[in-house]
Amino acid sequence: MKLDLEKGRVDLTHGSGGRAMHDLISNLFAKHFDNPLLAEGNDQAICKIPESYGSNPCLSVSTDSFVISPLFFPGGNIGNLAVHGTVNDVALAGAKPLWLTAGFILEEGFPLVDLTKIVASMAQAAQEADVQIVTGDTKVVPKGKADGLFINTTGVGVVLVDPLPSVRQIEVGDAIIINGPIGDHAVAIMAARENLKFDEELLSDCASLNGLIEAMVQSGTVIHAMRDPTRGGLSATLNEMATSAKVGIHLDEAAIPVRPAVKGVCEILGLDPLNLANEGKLIAFCPQDQAEPLLQAMRAHPLGCEAVVIGHTTDNPHCFVEMKTKLGGVRMVDWLTGDQLPRIC
Amino acid sequence: MKLDLEKGRVDLTHGSGGRAMHDLISNLFAKHFDNPLLAEGNDQAICKIPESYGSNPCLSVSTDSFVISPLFFPGGNIGNLAVHGTVNDVALAGAKPLWLTAGFILEEGFPLVDLTKIVASMAQAAQEADVQIVTGDTKVVPKGKADGLFINTTGVGVVLVDPLPSVRQIEVGDAIIINGPIGDHAVAIMAARENLKFDEELLSDCASLNGLIEAMVQSGTVIHAMRDPTRGGLSATLNEMATSAKVGIHLDEAAIPVRPAVKGVCEILGLDPLNLANEGKLIAFCPQDQAEPLLQAMRAHPLGCEAVVIGHTTDNPHCFVEMKTKLGGVRMVDWLTGDQLPRIC
Repeated sequence: MKLDLEKGRVDLTHGSGGRAMHDLISNLFAKHFDNPLLAEGNDQAICKIPESYGSNPCLSVSTDSFVISPLFFPGGNIGNLAVHGTVNDVALAGAKPLWLTAGFILEEGFPLVDLTKIVASMAQAAQEADVQIVTGDTKVVPKGKADGLFINTTGVGVVLVDPLPSVRQIEVGDAIIINGPIGDHAVAIMAARENLKFDEELLSDCASLNGLIEAMVQSGTVIHAMRDPTRGGLSATLNEMATSAKVGIHLDEAAIPVRPAVKGVCEILGLDPLNLANEGKLIAFCPQDQAEPLLQAMRAHPLGCEAVVIGHTTDNPHCFVEMKTKLGGVRMVDWLTGDQLPRIC
Repeated sequence: MKLDLEKGRVDLTHGSGGRAMHDLISNLFAKHFDNPLLAEGNDQAICKIPESYGSNPCLSVSTDSFVISPLFFPGGNIGNLAVHGTVNDVALAGAKPLWLTAGFILEEGFPLVDLTKIVASMAQAAQEADVQIVTGDTKVVPKGKADGLFINTTGVGVVLVDPLPSVRQIEVGDAIIINGPIGDHAVAIMAARENLKFDEELLSDCASLNGLIEAMVQSGTVIHAMRDPTRGGLSATLNEMATSAKVGIHLDEAAIPVRPAVKGVCEILGLDPLNLANEGKLIAFCPQDQAEPLLQAMRAHPLGCEAVVIGHTTDNPHCFVEMKTKLGGVRMVDWLTGDQLPRIC
């Protein structure tokens, strides 16, 4: 049966290892992800680290499965999100991502036209981030046993700096920087689910940050640690980092950028922007005297032009994250036990 | 809420990025997969290739998502299968697998006691295959949006040989070797699904073949190509290899090992053992004069003790796979378009 990418749907034969799967792979995945490593058509990719990264550099390896709902949302879809998310996790160790793998779990009946859109936007995101999708896998489950599709991406990159940024390096007094406003991704997803309308269009911030991270690393400023505040938002990420680094954190609410639309939704629905997921944000910890040069390096990059200092680390045996509120008080910033918004990535 | 690994179930908070997810990761995944790279607790693992593999060796990278049903089957479960499958795909390029990533998609309500069993058997399989699970990811979807759990594993290894085994190297006249009987995995799964009973116990053959592959590679015999006949069985794998290598293949039915129980099930259900999935088998292509020393090297390893030559490549412009039957005739071995048995891995 000829593959109909316009009106066809995924069926169980597309995951069977036989001719139908072969057709789907060569006419859809291989066509969009086209590169010499993938074209070898083996069950594994053979990757050679370019000599320019020196002899035997450290590798940065990260994996993420994406189960976001809905699959298409303002500012992106599960496909480019799956590229951005893993590119970012690889890069946040001060590494340059080189290769991605892509594993698809498809639900029987999923429209091939949607799959094509998703695969095409993965390919575009990979090209923009200068990474290659070098090998993949396709599984199909019967209708009702998944939710459209799930994508796993795993990334491999080379570490560019020594010592590499890590929570181990965080010190008391470090400045904490973020590259822009928080909560856009979560609120865009919420809007897509609930059909909310805003005066200004609100898009997910999902983006590959590896270019920004490379610029930060190559600026020569000292960076102690970096992480992206995705699921659980700023509050979960900062609490986890504080606990690992055995420091406290002091935030300044007035300094934390939040767009008016995000602020509005949070006020109406009783949400805390600090708990909202981001997909194109990073937080960096650096010595106080490095904050200014690091901010300059970040602001020179399109994805860092709104970078600001939002707080600093403190000497606190309980590793508390505290925030000076706009009213002048100080409140604890705890991380959620439960879930504000499931399936955000 | 304290994590109850005996009677508890997965809920949406376990995928939220907050405290509940942190508890699940540290009390279950990190405990079983324990190793120094994972213990760093970052969103990525920093991996250093041991100097003993030379300066800047090629990497072998492979990914697979596992959606097998049922999750537990005679001879294994989705957990150790997910290790074996990716270890094998990495190793079949003549590589030594070093590191795995693990991505879990969990359905709300999945019993934590089952998750613990699965994770423990992954950890054991990884230890036996001498690979480390260095980083992971956990997602939870609402009840009815997945089927218990799905696991993605991605593996990274170092290539041990040059030139590496690849379909490009296959030549007319090559001997084709398999390391043992076919169809055990598919029939074990079928038996678990349909509650079939056999006189002799039939187990899935699922196993990590990297030890066998290392022995084959280090024997110094010339190996042109290797692959594992998983989904689609021997017929799909050989047809794909023949097409890629632009050769024909001639098989000898009498030489292909099939256990009596598998033969019996195939006769009753009208299945062809050549189409049945395997999870602990490999086929190797080598020059005729290398077949005997390669067989000897394989038979010295527990997973290769039943290794035999099952055919050879031919000069055939149509890349047909043909088989001399036990009755003396010759029949075409086509690969399936459809699916004999979905969700086999």
